[in-house]
Amino acid sequence: MKISVHAASVDLLANSLANLSYLLDKGHAHAVARKYDPALLLAARLAPDMFPLTRQVQIASDASKFGVSRLAGIEAPKFEDNEQTFEELRARIARTIDFIKGVSAASLEGSEDRVIKVPARDRTLEFKGLDYLVRFVIPNAFFHITTAYAILRHAGVEIGKTDFLVGSGPGFSQSA
Amino acid sequence: MKISVHAASVDLLANSLANLSYLLDKGHAHAVARKYDPALLLAARLAPDMFPLTRQVQIASDASKFGVSRLAGIEAPKFEDNEQTFEELRARIARTIDFIKGVSAASLEGSEDRVIKVPARDRTLEFKGLDYLVRFVIPNAFFHITTAYAILRHAGVEIGKTDFLVGSGPGFSQSA
Repeated sequence: MKISVHAASVDLLANSLANLSYLLDKGHAHAVARKYDPALLLAARLAPDMFPLTRQVQIASDASKFGVSRLAGIEAPKFEDNEQTFEELRARIARTIDFIKGVSAASLEGSEDRVIKVPARDRTLEFKGLDYLVRFVIPNAFFHITTAYAILRHAGVEIGKTDFLVGSGPGFSQSA
Repeated sequence: MKISVHAASVDLLANSLANLSYLLDKGHAHAVARKYDPALLLAARLAPDMFPLTRQVQIASDASKFGVSRLAGIEAPKFEDNEQTFEELRARIARTIDFIKGVSAASLEGSEDRVIKVPARDRTLEFKGLDYLVRFVIPNAFFHITTAYAILRHAGVEIGKTDFLVGSGPGFSQSA
């Protein structure tokens, strides 16, 4: 027995994106409670030359949609990167989750051995599907999801690792 | 065809831990070049009530060693959590990588269906192996690895996402 690419991509990413959406909701509530413009939090960064919160969320979305679509060999939906509010970012995440959940396990079967081509600035990277998933898609998506968490946390939003891991619901059965 | 739990745990975590070790080396070099005590960087935090860099690295190590050992149903090595320097933290990471790489693919076979018990503060969590891997081990490890990156980056260490993804070497074949 082994695990499916679907479980290690769609399930993994959809779960973590749902948790990110929950974290953003906490961020928005924080801005409202403190009576400051939520757009200030969306523009927050950890360093002057790092992307702000909005862009971290957009890239987490892109990393997920491109990861799954390239493995499946299908086109990903195009997003305009024009989100201005927490609500719009959460809608973007919801659309991303809908898209990746709509990719069937069957269409990902065998993708671990497929050659995946990723356009980069001045060349095209080629990966074996399994390497692409394990060494690029998963680390890249978590890089941006966790950085979004860190921006919120650094700004004083009251969130903790439990929110990051299971904020949108545990998604697994557990016993006491 | 599907992918092995070994690929989605040992390979994934060993690669990202090696990149973390590389990031720490860049952090140490930054402190030396700026002529400040590297221990100050090890004690840096993103927020007063978040763990400092040293603890983030220790937990990333623990998340990885426990993740793999529980899936395999074996004991993990005990670490004393007494690292005081970058060199000691990098040695801790190296020992963690050695341990998880020593867990055979065969001993992880079928672990996706195993019941995994994780002691928590006041109870024992139970997961199906696949859920444990996808919803706990991987997000938890990346949470701490990325937070370590964010602490370094926030402190002015000159690192970028490429260092996070492939700092220790690409680990995959690619063509121009």
